[in-house]
Amino acid sequence: MNEQTTDSQSKRIPAEELMQWSSDAFAACGMSRQDADTGARVLLRTSLRGIDTHGVSRLPVYVEKLCNGEVDPHAQPLIESRHGALHCDGRNGLGQVVASRAMAETIATARATALAACTIRNSGHLAALGMFLLQASEQGMFALLCQKTPPLMALPGSTARAIGNNPIAFSMPVNDGPPMVFDMASSVVARGNVLQAVRDKLPSIPEGWAIGPDGMPTTDPTQALAGAMLPVAGYKGIGLAMLVECLAGSFSGTEPARNLNTGTAGSASDASAFLLVINPELMFGRAAFDAYSSAWLQHYLQASGPFARYPGQRQAACEAERLREGIPLPAALREELRQVGERLGIGFHW
Amino acid sequence: MNEQTTDSQSKRIPAEELMQWSSDAFAACGMSRQDADTGARVLLRTSLRGIDTHGVSRLPVYVEKLCNGEVDPHAQPLIESRHGALHCDGRNGLGQVVASRAMAETIATARATALAACTIRNSGHLAALGMFLLQASEQGMFALLCQKTPPLMALPGSTARAIGNNPIAFSMPVNDGPPMVFDMASSVVARGNVLQAVRDKLPSIPEGWAIGPDGMPTTDPTQALAGAMLPVAGYKGIGLAMLVECLAGSFSGTEPARNLNTGTAGSASDASAFLLVINPELMFGRAAFDAYSSAWLQHYLQASGPFARYPGQRQAACEAERLREGIPLPAALREELRQVGERLGIGFHW
Repeated sequence: MNEQTTDSQSKRIPAEELMQWSSDAFAACGMSRQDADTGARVLLRTSLRGIDTHGVSRLPVYVEKLCNGEVDPHAQPLIESRHGALHCDGRNGLGQVVASRAMAETIATARATALAACTIRNSGHLAALGMFLLQASEQGMFALLCQKTPPLMALPGSTARAIGNNPIAFSMPVNDGPPMVFDMASSVVARGNVLQAVRDKLPSIPEGWAIGPDGMPTTDPTQALAGAMLPVAGYKGIGLAMLVECLAGSFSGTEPARNLNTGTAGSASDASAFLLVINPELMFGRAAFDAYSSAWLQHYLQASGPFARYPGQRQAACEAERLREGIPLPAALREELRQVGERLGIGFHW
Repeated sequence: MNEQTTDSQSKRIPAEELMQWSSDAFAACGMSRQDADTGARVLLRTSLRGIDTHGVSRLPVYVEKLCNGEVDPHAQPLIESRHGALHCDGRNGLGQVVASRAMAETIATARATALAACTIRNSGHLAALGMFLLQASEQGMFALLCQKTPPLMALPGSTARAIGNNPIAFSMPVNDGPPMVFDMASSVVARGNVLQAVRDKLPSIPEGWAIGPDGMPTTDPTQALAGAMLPVAGYKGIGLAMLVECLAGSFSGTEPARNLNTGTAGSASDASAFLLVINPELMFGRAAFDAYSSAWLQHYLQASGPFARYPGQRQAACEAERLREGIPLPAALREELRQVGERLGIGFHW
């Protein structure tokens, strides 16, 4: 995920400056300063934690969508509480803002009740789910978040993309370390890898990534792009994707006709999600939670050898380093951001 | 899972008779008739649905544990509600009884609030998780259940079993069909496959199943048995296992020292679990749930070819067939049950 740091043309930009500039970009698209800050903060933190594919590199796409009306810069998410569940209508707003708001409200609810859940509909896509989870775990809570994607995955023998690769993520507080944050999609690899192989005119992709439109396994990037991605562990990956279809789709209140998310790849207004927050304090208490978690986590780390880490540790280390040294942006991305700045009348001076 | 039906020595026994006999066996161990019926019903339904490894074939082991005190036949699970969550202390009772009780209480709670959750601790192991989920989905609800197992899985390079393969299962009602029921463990295959290979003195197991005690991948069954099972999809399987450690372990109120489940394999009193029930009626209504579910499920089935089924359909077909034709029991199992019957003073006449 950190390959951009190895680009010889990459340049480190102080996080605070890049955050301010990103917020200015969102504000120039018509977003309120508060929402612009929220959106920029999520993107920046994603970049700080080394998830360069989902961080500030996405800003040009979001700006385009905010300008062409696919995403509404003025949208104010509407969150309702009904029968003990929260439901957030994103009203076609930027996913980073919608999910931050939904998460804040769900955390607040979980201060009074052990479990709180929130469905999210009509939202821009949420990108890196872990960023929202951190909001919860840095306040001592467990959180789980899953998101429905357009169909792009299928078992061998299928003649069309059958189901999304539907990411699922969770985080939990760790007593003497950064939160555990785990995020997976149920395809073997992201479809972006096939797209990249086609763009780079690579002769082949590894076996096991994809099937062609005929349903047969393929290593040909073009066939794979026309076909579907393979799930992890065969039917197990399909089952996990179905779990997310149910939680993030069937419960979300989205109109059935919109279940295929036909919007522009990587966003539009069709994203839906499901969020669960559990407050250890209101279960058996935080101390009991920490004592038990420490027992299994220490066992795991000891059994797994001297270099073992738990999910989230590497990202936390990257964040500390990039906060100190700045966020490395490759030349091509800086050029893209420069063009965005020109369009919006806010110079990009790095 | 149906391999026992191909045993030439197998004999079909009417489900109702086998259920009655199994209940008599539990009652002879000291369980109340009501609990004996509950335990027998779960075992029988597991066999009816073709999961022969976890059904009536387990009865001899349970009887042994009930007789030697590892499982308490008189245990009455204690379920408390606190801050909007339920907590079930199984008090060392038979897992099938404890989980049935916890499920019933959680379903009842979810009639008044959209989401209900229950932790389970100090329980015998739950065996086939789907049986409890069906209780919920046959009453129109979504349910998720996960269970912590003793450590038996590790990534290559590990020198000890690092974490359980922690099964996770869910089910949802399907408008015009049997409930969807999906159940997976996060190891590539169950450890039982390695045990069986050692018993059968097979020269090798497939690559990718296990590592030896040195942390290196192995195809030697004895090395694999001394080593650890491999997770599905590498770190993704480990992450899913950690999710279950947190939900079914850290939240369960189990004493930290008992996190390694050192009881006899397949049971004892150290099992813990986490259960979530969601009532579609109290989200956006059952009709909205069904309409959306039908949209993605039909898309999945159409894309996946003429023989595509969703998880749970095959089990439901097996159940209908076995209810009609009886449950096939191989000769060796009938002999085992005959011995159990002799020990308990209840004849086994099939």
